[in-house]
Amino acid sequence: MRLATLNDGSLDGRLIIVASDGARAAHAPAPWTTLIGALQQWATAEPALRAAAAALDAGEGGFAFDPAACAAPLPRAPQWLDASAFLNHGRLMESAFGTPPIPDFDTVPVMYQGASDDFLGPHQDVPLPSEAHGIDFEGEFGVIVDAVPMGATPAQALAAVRLVVQLNDWSLRALGQHEVRTGFGFLQAKPSTAFAPIAVTPEALGPAWQAGRLNLRLHVQWNGERFGEPSASEMNFDFGQLIAHAARTRRLSAGTIVGSGTVSNAERGAGSACIAERRMIEKLAHGEIRSGFMRFGDRVRLQACHADGRPGPFGAIDQRVVAAGAP
Amino acid sequence: MRLATLNDGSLDGRLIIVASDGARAAHAPAPWTTLIGALQQWATAEPALRAAAAALDAGEGGFAFDPAACAAPLPRAPQWLDASAFLNHGRLMESAFGTPPIPDFDTVPVMYQGASDDFLGPHQDVPLPSEAHGIDFEGEFGVIVDAVPMGATPAQALAAVRLVVQLNDWSLRALGQHEVRTGFGFLQAKPSTAFAPIAVTPEALGPAWQAGRLNLRLHVQWNGERFGEPSASEMNFDFGQLIAHAARTRRLSAGTIVGSGTVSNAERGAGSACIAERRMIEKLAHGEIRSGFMRFGDRVRLQACHADGRPGPFGAIDQRVVAAGAP
Repeated sequence: MRLATLNDGSLDGRLIIVASDGARAAHAPAPWTTLIGALQQWATAEPALRAAAAALDAGEGGFAFDPAACAAPLPRAPQWLDASAFLNHGRLMESAFGTPPIPDFDTVPVMYQGASDDFLGPHQDVPLPSEAHGIDFEGEFGVIVDAVPMGATPAQALAAVRLVVQLNDWSLRALGQHEVRTGFGFLQAKPSTAFAPIAVTPEALGPAWQAGRLNLRLHVQWNGERFGEPSASEMNFDFGQLIAHAARTRRLSAGTIVGSGTVSNAERGAGSACIAERRMIEKLAHGEIRSGFMRFGDRVRLQACHADGRPGPFGAIDQRVVAAGAP
Repeated sequence: MRLATLNDGSLDGRLIIVASDGARAAHAPAPWTTLIGALQQWATAEPALRAAAAALDAGEGGFAFDPAACAAPLPRAPQWLDASAFLNHGRLMESAFGTPPIPDFDTVPVMYQGASDDFLGPHQDVPLPSEAHGIDFEGEFGVIVDAVPMGATPAQALAAVRLVVQLNDWSLRALGQHEVRTGFGFLQAKPSTAFAPIAVTPEALGPAWQAGRLNLRLHVQWNGERFGEPSASEMNFDFGQLIAHAARTRRLSAGTIVGSGTVSNAERGAGSACIAERRMIEKLAHGEIRSGFMRFGDRVRLQACHADGRPGPFGAIDQRVVAAGAP
């Protein structure tokens, strides 16, 4: 099942069901008018939503699906917790920031808490205050969970995954370097995160979802040029482990989103899903950084694809960076 | 004006108005049934709430105010951002964690993003998984803001303060030490934060609210014994500066809460508002740590008071730590 949210001006938007062909959609039946509402009562909502999805796939009703009319699947969420589960990315970022090695990095997940009140839709402009902040994209995947009790095991946590999403964890590198050194973690370095339009139930991913990991490549284009297509299968912790890490000393409300961190492969030919990583690879390969960060007007496009190049089910993130207006 | 929220089993609770004497309360008039709803339309809500507060103070209607029936004023909030604005506390914590000095600590606020989906009320038990995690309280103050645009100045940010609150930022020190070293900030080290029952508009604080700082002492008792009464007036950044720091690269939704960090005074006779700080003071004074952290069954009581000992308007936080049930 594929779900999306139309931006209707409200804080939670209007839940829609997207057909399996990705071309048509239908409003979710009442009372499931928002995704957060459905997640809070998933046992009741899921059968109703699946029945509506089956009717849509059978050709009943619906309208043309317009990704540009979409908000993030959850325009706001109870929590947004983003890991750094691709160790190759983490090691390159340590070099980029010049910070000491993260302790226990290969055995204990690292994760920061992000703002979850103001997510961006897949085609929304990204307003930022300054090009000098080191504007960077971070192509990632994530999961939306049902309520998770404090102390859940990785297996219990994985069973709470309701939807899988694709996202862009916008980052300001010049601010992140300072914030990592404070030990308090990212805050100014992490403006609003953006999401691909379609959230997908795990079973609808078929073999692309295995043991809490995605077997998809994230195709990244910066201003229309190929930037990389790293595979998500190299994730060093699975989503069950990440969710359990988040829930060790707290319960997670239904609708909490847990992210993978930037998709990254040790094999250099796969390219990267963020600029900071490419810059470090340039430095290692050529002794100098050759790429700058993003400028106002730049675009980034992120689209998950199967190994054979067929597009994945999430739709694309395609955003432009713009100068924020004065308050 | 003083506002509180009854725990009625819903996610946002039921907004009530508390009389100036703190003894009686009344349900807020429709449609202002929740504090978050009122904050999202404050220009319309505030006059209606003030009229109801005036009627209550004039003796019309109402019921006995019961702090034990209260949730946090906002049981959940769009964002929860906690600073470390008492430099005396920060310096002691650097010693406690054995971490390098925070860069630019006296000129740039440090702040972490906390979970905001599951706050505790003033008398709710605090379920935690293990005494070995170094269970500690952190007595603080905070502000609840209206919508703040990205890039707001400290003066603009301070003008967006709608309510002032008193809180306990529960901390697990054994986990925090690791998380500070990762650079990703606190996550497992910060279980649900608790709030005193009454949120107070700035003007109702009179001279206790000056230039974005509180002039109150936070009286702290651990298991009924005096622990300290540090003054909040020593805050090294004012709340306008803290809010502006948070809003530098993002907008803040109405209802966002910004915290001061642990109240702490350079004058040792004031005692402390967290155990970790007392432990470091013991080590500096005696060459050894004498205090342990909290045990299951322990209680902490936090109550803001004026310099002359009169209680402040927030009511008390009085909580017991308990072992979390298996999931």
